[in-house]
Amino acid sequence: MSTAALHQEFARIAGPENVFKDASDLLTYSYDAALLPSQPPGLAVRPTTLEALGQVVRLCNQEGLPLTVRGAGTNLSGGTIPAREGVVVVTTALNRIVEINQEDLYAVVEPGVINARLFAEAQKLGLFYPPDPGSQAVSTLGGNVAENSGGLRGLKYGVTRDYVMGLSFFDTEGQLVKTGSRTVKCATGYNLAGLMVGSEGTLGVFGQIILRLIPPPAASRALLAVFDRVQAASETVAAIIAARITPATLEFLDNFTIRTVEEFSGAGLPTEAAALLLIEVDGHPAQVAEEAQKVQEICRAQGATLVRPAADAAEKERIWTARRAAIPALARLKPSVVLEDATVPRSKVPELVRFINDLAKRYELTIGTFGHAGDGNLHPTIVFDQRDAEQEKRVRQAVEELFDRALALGGTLSGEHGLGLTKTRFLVKEVGKATIAWSRRLKRAMDPKGILNPGKIVGA
Amino acid sequence: MSTAALHQEFARIAGPENVFKDASDLLTYSYDAALLPSQPPGLAVRPTTLEALGQVVRLCNQEGLPLTVRGAGTNLSGGTIPAREGVVVVTTALNRIVEINQEDLYAVVEPGVINARLFAEAQKLGLFYPPDPGSQAVSTLGGNVAENSGGLRGLKYGVTRDYVMGLSFFDTEGQLVKTGSRTVKCATGYNLAGLMVGSEGTLGVFGQIILRLIPPPAASRALLAVFDRVQAASETVAAIIAARITPATLEFLDNFTIRTVEEFSGAGLPTEAAALLLIEVDGHPAQVAEEAQKVQEICRAQGATLVRPAADAAEKERIWTARRAAIPALARLKPSVVLEDATVPRSKVPELVRFINDLAKRYELTIGTFGHAGDGNLHPTIVFDQRDAEQEKRVRQAVEELFDRALALGGTLSGEHGLGLTKTRFLVKEVGKATIAWSRRLKRAMDPKGILNPGKIVGA
Repeated sequence: MSTAALHQEFARIAGPENVFKDASDLLTYSYDAALLPSQPPGLAVRPTTLEALGQVVRLCNQEGLPLTVRGAGTNLSGGTIPAREGVVVVTTALNRIVEINQEDLYAVVEPGVINARLFAEAQKLGLFYPPDPGSQAVSTLGGNVAENSGGLRGLKYGVTRDYVMGLSFFDTEGQLVKTGSRTVKCATGYNLAGLMVGSEGTLGVFGQIILRLIPPPAASRALLAVFDRVQAASETVAAIIAARITPATLEFLDNFTIRTVEEFSGAGLPTEAAALLLIEVDGHPAQVAEEAQKVQEICRAQGATLVRPAADAAEKERIWTARRAAIPALARLKPSVVLEDATVPRSKVPELVRFINDLAKRYELTIGTFGHAGDGNLHPTIVFDQRDAEQEKRVRQAVEELFDRALALGGTLSGEHGLGLTKTRFLVKEVGKATIAWSRRLKRAMDPKGILNPGKIVGA
Repeated sequence: MSTAALHQEFARIAGPENVFKDASDLLTYSYDAALLPSQPPGLAVRPTTLEALGQVVRLCNQEGLPLTVRGAGTNLSGGTIPAREGVVVVTTALNRIVEINQEDLYAVVEPGVINARLFAEAQKLGLFYPPDPGSQAVSTLGGNVAENSGGLRGLKYGVTRDYVMGLSFFDTEGQLVKTGSRTVKCATGYNLAGLMVGSEGTLGVFGQIILRLIPPPAASRALLAVFDRVQAASETVAAIIAARITPATLEFLDNFTIRTVEEFSGAGLPTEAAALLLIEVDGHPAQVAEEAQKVQEICRAQGATLVRPAADAAEKERIWTARRAAIPALARLKPSVVLEDATVPRSKVPELVRFINDLAKRYELTIGTFGHAGDGNLHPTIVFDQRDAEQEKRVRQAVEELFDRALALGGTLSGEHGLGLTKTRFLVKEVGKATIAWSRRLKRAMDPKGILNPGKIVGA
């Protein structure tokens, strides 16, 4: 099909107002939040119905056009960077909350619904959607599912995967595949929903998603613990877990991150602290009171210089929002940011923190470390200037050492950001050749022309 | 390879004492707990190391021999019935608990470890492995993972899938594929562990399995609620969920099941009751006290004739064990038993119970209904005599009507028993042709010779 005919066909499917081909429009879809060269697509299309979405997929497959689905583009591993001359399928117009079922505790959503909107709508009905990635105010549920996004509540409530009851997706022929159920238990057919979670758009294009909702906790309490030694803070994390307490949130911020976030947000963080833990316990009021008490005792015993509850809900919200802004805050400092996602078994957090500090010294790099310490999932963030080739080389070497150490500690390359384009080449270190061969065989079978977000996860 | 040479090769791999070819031995491996004609395999082999297991898989693939993995053979959907002249791979000698990690809260096990053994070993260390299928005293964790087994605690604690952090499996070439991690979060590569859970041995053969453990609840209370109307009991289930209480266990037994179980176990169940709910709430002691109180109030308001806490731990254990014995108890009554697994959204339980009673009348069948009502997962169990062809026909028709109704109510064919051989032909009704085509394409790509437990889930 000629380019003109193709454009006409996309316009017929999605409406001419939803087909973008100007260079300035395409630039918008050429990058995401990962530090990678931008790559404008050949075309972007924004279907407004699931039917049109299916037709777009079929057309791309028929024409052999690479297709990258994009929600808000907050991806941190390059998962939404399109292929050259490829098509970006924008999901933002597929933003209907189809159903919130209060009796059976689930929601049915289209992929373009923003995470925070579902949270808010569920909350109005006395229900709770826990997964809260840092990007929750803008990122879409389709993107969350494609990346298996985590968030601040992951420690107690799990990640996106734990809330996907079912979903439908378009195969490369544009046929709708259905998997999972509106029931809390389902052992019917292959767990394709499980496979699709975290598949980064490489196996199919999501239609509707069925997400589990839960009753919200009856009470919660937020605590701030201030440390004058980084190591004491990281050991406190391990001590809280060892005491068999499972906080909803157990976040770590080092001094560099605290100062940067404070400057950005003015939330009132103690900028002189070597490290800070943000802790939230929730559940039954009596349990919350006891756990908050125990957590404070543990923090003090581990050497916290100050432990205090958030003064009120407003202060808690201010501080948590500031923490969620860590990425944009750090990104302001230098032209380039590499935000890593290596994850270790929780007991290894102190060792990982020590290693990261050593890494910063050895490579003479500025690394701000923060993240979901209770999950063993830290985000060491390197701010630098990519235009300095020598500096960039040091960054690359430091990142590779970080991965090696995380794996040596029994960890994994990614806790919640996925592999995308940035970590594909490291995968073999973690899982070995047979796993990659199996994964590629799977990918080829389900996408014979290789049109679905090519290059992501297992490479070309 | 000649049959003699093949036997010799299996003996070389697994040791001659672990290769079974006598008709009497093979009969043992010819059936499971589903009502299907028995099918003796050509040979059974019991590897004692994972290395030998991988070699067995490779040999079977090389020779084009169908291979069915079998743990305890408690499968209720025919998933462990071998192919004619196929090989049964028995996992009972692969029964090592490799590690229980108390700091990072996970266990690494071989597939032949019995569920109750892991539970007990974890308990000794102050940890908790929640999934508790009725068969837990004998069924293996490999089988639990292959079927995504549920259990009595599913309502609050989820099913096997929710505890699989990672696993390795042998592909058809005998190569070890690794997926998931020892970390609580992992977004590295495809979620192949999620795909393998519930795949019924059709995509690979499990090596080691990494299972999440959790801190046990601090307190629990068990309640019995007696009803003189079935409908009142089923409506109580919906009312408890609607009150935003999530009991660990919320089991329903109808009069026929109560009488049968009582006769079998002598546990002290009220045999005159029309229906019985077994309820357990757990968590923080204050929460347990409040929830137990609320649950009792709801039961009374819904018309329970008696609600009482279990007198002590021993009584609770006796009653719960009796409930777990429902299947063998019912199986004693008549030559044939069909135990179904259709599952509906929880609010539809009253409607499903009403439908099952109506079904029993219309088809003049004896149906005992029990199961995980809180999950919408009931087990209507038909006891009859298969030798009576007319009766068997009525059973088949009733089962098909049951599936249709469950689907019409927004439910699913199987909550926890899988499709195996018994429900494969109904799958299209639930998921449609495109899903089956996608699943078959997946299966063919990963098992080109079709040796891995052929015929299960999506048919040949």
